[in-house]
Amino acid sequence: MNIIEWKNNVLYILDQSKLPFKEDYILCFKYQQVIDAIKKMKIRGAPAIGVATAYGIALAAIKYTGSNILDYLNEVMSEFAISRPTAVNLFFAINRMANILNNNRNLSPSDIKILLLEEAKRIENEEREKSDAISSYGAEIVPEKARILTHCNTGSLATIGPGTALGVVKEAWKWGKLEHVYFTETRPLLQGARLTGWELYKEKIPSTLITDNMVGYVMSKGLVNIVIVGADRITLRGDTANKIGTYMIAVLVNYHNIPFYIAAPFSSFDLNIENGSDIPVEERDSEEVLTCMGKKITLDEIKALNPAFDITPAELITGIITDKGVIYPPFKEKILKIKEEISK
Amino acid sequence: MNIIEWKNNVLYILDQSKLPFKEDYILCFKYQQVIDAIKKMKIRGAPAIGVATAYGIALAAIKYTGSNILDYLNEVMSEFAISRPTAVNLFFAINRMANILNNNRNLSPSDIKILLLEEAKRIENEEREKSDAISSYGAEIVPEKARILTHCNTGSLATIGPGTALGVVKEAWKWGKLEHVYFTETRPLLQGARLTGWELYKEKIPSTLITDNMVGYVMSKGLVNIVIVGADRITLRGDTANKIGTYMIAVLVNYHNIPFYIAAPFSSFDLNIENGSDIPVEERDSEEVLTCMGKKITLDEIKALNPAFDITPAELITGIITDKGVIYPPFKEKILKIKEEISK
Repeated sequence: MNIIEWKNNVLYILDQSKLPFKEDYILCFKYQQVIDAIKKMKIRGAPAIGVATAYGIALAAIKYTGSNILDYLNEVMSEFAISRPTAVNLFFAINRMANILNNNRNLSPSDIKILLLEEAKRIENEEREKSDAISSYGAEIVPEKARILTHCNTGSLATIGPGTALGVVKEAWKWGKLEHVYFTETRPLLQGARLTGWELYKEKIPSTLITDNMVGYVMSKGLVNIVIVGADRITLRGDTANKIGTYMIAVLVNYHNIPFYIAAPFSSFDLNIENGSDIPVEERDSEEVLTCMGKKITLDEIKALNPAFDITPAELITGIITDKGVIYPPFKEKILKIKEEISK
Repeated sequence: MNIIEWKNNVLYILDQSKLPFKEDYILCFKYQQVIDAIKKMKIRGAPAIGVATAYGIALAAIKYTGSNILDYLNEVMSEFAISRPTAVNLFFAINRMANILNNNRNLSPSDIKILLLEEAKRIENEEREKSDAISSYGAEIVPEKARILTHCNTGSLATIGPGTALGVVKEAWKWGKLEHVYFTETRPLLQGARLTGWELYKEKIPSTLITDNMVGYVMSKGLVNIVIVGADRITLRGDTANKIGTYMIAVLVNYHNIPFYIAAPFSSFDLNIENGSDIPVEERDSEEVLTCMGKKITLDEIKALNPAFDITPAELITGIITDKGVIYPPFKEKILKIKEEISK
């Protein structure tokens, strides 16, 4: 099953808001449908958002019949840029598409369209390779008889390929190093219960669902010996934005002396930002918190917070598993060195 | 609204599993219905469970028409004793009723029935007084412009009277010391979202609902300057069993240097136990975690943990607000001193 697929100029997006109960695809004929799917988290996960954005821009180009494709696509890209503010992969994808556009502005619109679609496919393939690389590098640092705790969904549904943190889990399982996985339900949208549960079940990996408030309990009982989670954006010093609840888990592992790893493609690093406090954290509609699976959980008059992410400071992170290898503190110099090697 | 009421030999129990959407009473004509309501958490909260148990035993006595009331009631009391294992108030209530029974075993059955009902009413009234005392003692230690975080429900629905932790919140509000309350939804059964939200709304106290995984976020943002929660059982050294998630919150306040208070009647102390690891923690049906508001949240094949409580070690607790005053560490000697004064 592909979470995103390009076929006959239509972008098929698996509607993750209906999983695991229904496997429905949204057929996107217009780029606005792609933006809507991103906003409503029908497709989510930083790498997947990047790929959907790239295809969405290609879709806009291909369907365009006007006479000023450059201005039009610049407008389209600004619309994608505000669809979700935290995941840096979205901006990474926009930049890649913008570069193609700018470097080929003198070509005919039909040639530009072909190049944009090729670039989107290239980004998709690269994400698959990154996901494979993260999984292998990560499986190396997983201890024997690992009892991994993970949060939210960072598997095939969040990426193209096996996943980031969940990719490492799957690879460790193949290598015979994995004893058990504990996964949080991840309120409010339950990506853990719905999506990670579904992926772990399909892979037949021994696992147990917990509510988000059981994280301290499982650690105090010695049930977990390593924590691996994903990332939506990582700063130069290693501060990491990830699904709400990650920071809480990081403080708990710190108290219990359990290793805490982030798994993310190198493209999740935002080298323009030093401190986590400078990452914009998306505040989503409080209706998501006031409901569960579409059912109201409290009175209409109640107010709720709904930050989609929180920031974990670098000091709480043991290592960052990337497609370029595992990085240990101090992160900054190593990140800059990899950056330099890539640019060569 | 009373959460429990004795009227014409029928025990009325407000069905909290339907709140805040329906205000239904269960009419208990038989003690088995009381046990069922406790097991299914239609009535919950350590002090409320104690009162329900006392009335349940009185109900069993009054409805009994056989010839051996002593043996019968001993059997009934053992059934109550296994209804929920963690809250010590349940055993406290059973002991009180057993004492009445044993001290009056030579009286006629009809006299015994009257004495048992009187004792249940006495326990109810005492709980109301304890709840008032906790609220006042607690309001004293709440700082001006307090931004309190609380967990689960510890209000009028969990106790008789204003509550324990939530009683303190209400009293601090009356005293003009309260700026805001953050309350966790408290999965799996959402006592925070459903019950605490309802109570705070009725009292018009400014408040915000958060999911359990936002606790770290609100602390990191400086939104909270004191945490107050309840207790189901407290050991002699101060280790505290409370709703799952409490331990996680305690570790987080420790990291953020925020004061962390437990609020509970002195009857929640179990002076027979020194260490928290000796408190039995109830493992409930995993169906509660696999569903939310009765709706399935994941595949049928998924397994889940469901400990109802966790244990917070005394070292993470700033103080314990009781009906006998606020106790600070080292807890043991102060607890024994109060115990001694009570026995005089």
